[in-house]
Amino acid sequence: MPVVGMVGGGQLARMTQQAAIALGVELRVLASDPGDSAAKVVSDAPVGDHRSLPDLLAFAKGCDVVTFDHEHVPTEHIRALEEAGVAVHPGSAALLYAQDKAAMRERLTEIGAPCPPWRRVSEPSDVTSFGDEHGWPVVLKAVRGGYDGRGVWVVGSAEEAAAVMSEVTVPLMAEACVRFTREIAVLVARSPHGQGVCYPVVETVQENGICTEVLAPAPDLDPADAAKAQRVALDIATRLGVTGLLAVEMFETPDGVLVNELAMRPHNSGHWTIEGARTSQFEQHLRAILDLPLGSPAPTAPHVVMANVLGGTEPSVYPRYLHVMAHDPAVKVHFYGKDVRPGRKIGHTTALGTRLAHVRDRARHAADYLAGVIDE
Amino acid sequence: MPVVGMVGGGQLARMTQQAAIALGVELRVLASDPGDSAAKVVSDAPVGDHRSLPDLLAFAKGCDVVTFDHEHVPTEHIRALEEAGVAVHPGSAALLYAQDKAAMRERLTEIGAPCPPWRRVSEPSDVTSFGDEHGWPVVLKAVRGGYDGRGVWVVGSAEEAAAVMSEVTVPLMAEACVRFTREIAVLVARSPHGQGVCYPVVETVQENGICTEVLAPAPDLDPADAAKAQRVALDIATRLGVTGLLAVEMFETPDGVLVNELAMRPHNSGHWTIEGARTSQFEQHLRAILDLPLGSPAPTAPHVVMANVLGGTEPSVYPRYLHVMAHDPAVKVHFYGKDVRPGRKIGHTTALGTRLAHVRDRARHAADYLAGVIDE
Repeated sequence: MPVVGMVGGGQLARMTQQAAIALGVELRVLASDPGDSAAKVVSDAPVGDHRSLPDLLAFAKGCDVVTFDHEHVPTEHIRALEEAGVAVHPGSAALLYAQDKAAMRERLTEIGAPCPPWRRVSEPSDVTSFGDEHGWPVVLKAVRGGYDGRGVWVVGSAEEAAAVMSEVTVPLMAEACVRFTREIAVLVARSPHGQGVCYPVVETVQENGICTEVLAPAPDLDPADAAKAQRVALDIATRLGVTGLLAVEMFETPDGVLVNELAMRPHNSGHWTIEGARTSQFEQHLRAILDLPLGSPAPTAPHVVMANVLGGTEPSVYPRYLHVMAHDPAVKVHFYGKDVRPGRKIGHTTALGTRLAHVRDRARHAADYLAGVIDE
Repeated sequence: MPVVGMVGGGQLARMTQQAAIALGVELRVLASDPGDSAAKVVSDAPVGDHRSLPDLLAFAKGCDVVTFDHEHVPTEHIRALEEAGVAVHPGSAALLYAQDKAAMRERLTEIGAPCPPWRRVSEPSDVTSFGDEHGWPVVLKAVRGGYDGRGVWVVGSAEEAAAVMSEVTVPLMAEACVRFTREIAVLVARSPHGQGVCYPVVETVQENGICTEVLAPAPDLDPADAAKAQRVALDIATRLGVTGLLAVEMFETPDGVLVNELAMRPHNSGHWTIEGARTSQFEQHLRAILDLPLGSPAPTAPHVVMANVLGGTEPSVYPRYLHVMAHDPAVKVHFYGKDVRPGRKIGHTTALGTRLAHVRDRARHAADYLAGVIDE
């Protein structure tokens, strides 16, 4: 059986292990610590530094394919792995666009994918002229490294922009602050020989830059808009040469969809697929990077809702299982084996059914109770 | 999070790991070899002998609950663990009835569960008188240790019985050879504080004493018979004090159901629940032995069929994934990471849908192709 090496030991690698167990594929994880979420449940989990090329090369030895649980491996190291003959999926040429937001915007603009107005900015006057042209506030983004609301600043004036830029040393870009109706996401998979599949479009509910809920499918989405969003995502996967999963986060606006962010790995917006689709995103990623035929993305219920469990102040979530499981024997609980820290994504819940409001209430209740936000 | 120790590193422990990962429960496995099916996918998998009390005591240290992947731990060792203060589920008093077929028949007869005629036999004349009373052929069974058709002999005459008994040194029992319509199985879970749940009754298709297919629910089963079978299984779980899963294999006969065998662990007849029920048998077993509220056993599709993949002559199944997955993107493939040996259970496939004949064809095709029985 093939050996798949995943760089990074977070919950995405942890959940990939569930899929690897079913397929009989051997998963190896490069962990940063033996206590990493995935390292706890993978027998072959060497500890190493994903920023160290020697560590990466040692890790890749004996792997049939190397893939990623996050975007933080330096692009030049991925190129070096490829030059050393390692099969890396997604490859460096594609992954660059999930690592560098400015490169992503350039490329998407080039291929005609719908994007908000944007530009690279190096001094406050760049932001001022961009804001004066496209309107205030302006969204400033770190070109590399940001996620879950980090590395993003919304600035309302030239002064605020200057204040951010005096503090931040990394390259920045400016984007128009999109007046969106809601945020949606499209998950596609593409294999090296070019097969592609697309999951139903979902709505992602965000609070303070962190995804709190995913509604699958996105409620009341116009079928033409859904088809358009799926076409955009599949097209990006093809044109960028993505292998494995591609999650495309989008803004739904009155004028159509705009691409927000790209991720080339299993994604929070796809956790609902574990129970809610015939093929989970984790199995799909394995199938794609192994160049196996892709699995059916068909949903298993009319409505699926995933709610993230964010860490609260109680050190253990486990005592709260009792009430959640007694309250709703059909809700699914996922816990990532991570230490609880306030606001940290430590697990998620999934509910499935025919009535959206009810399904959403169930997932929400379980997540809120586990997080300690509610007590009944 | 609690630590669950499972004695035995086979595929049942392996699939339990998938459920443990979701719940955040830490699974520890006592493997007989580092290459065991489960040892490959569990980071905490010490090697030891399940027949050695010191090994069992060392393994149990730090476990919140100890449970089993098979029935082969000596009953006296389980009692010794309990006396040492280890929480063992199922406990020795219940597990005895899954280990000792004669003790099981005595107890089931006592509580009024429907059984075929049976008796302990120690010499050929016992079999002769039993056969003359209940009819020939007679089924001889090893009281302990048999499974998958091993430890079972169908004898047509006093001479054949004498021949078996001259070869076999273990205690035997005789059972009437039941003229059954088909074989069915009922899977229930019971927690220490007494909650019970029951999965839909399934049909188990056997060839040469090995289960080849499970049809869930059992097609065209009279609802009254289904309810009766479920009542019998739940009643056995309660009266025997089972904690965790109980699989009750039954014969369906024109006069009603008869109990054939008991297993107190996840069971081959329940593999369909991984995708086919809201709570998989593996998650259910963990919830039951941890005394968590039990999960919903509701099916996720009108028809679910599981087909076992038996080892053929090809050393690797993996090259056959290509055709199976391309042929049917919705069929689920499970491979246990075991070396292929002819006739060995090395994996299973699951199909779900609305038309039984079609669902069964799909699961069957995938399993047969993976096994090398067919080539298109």
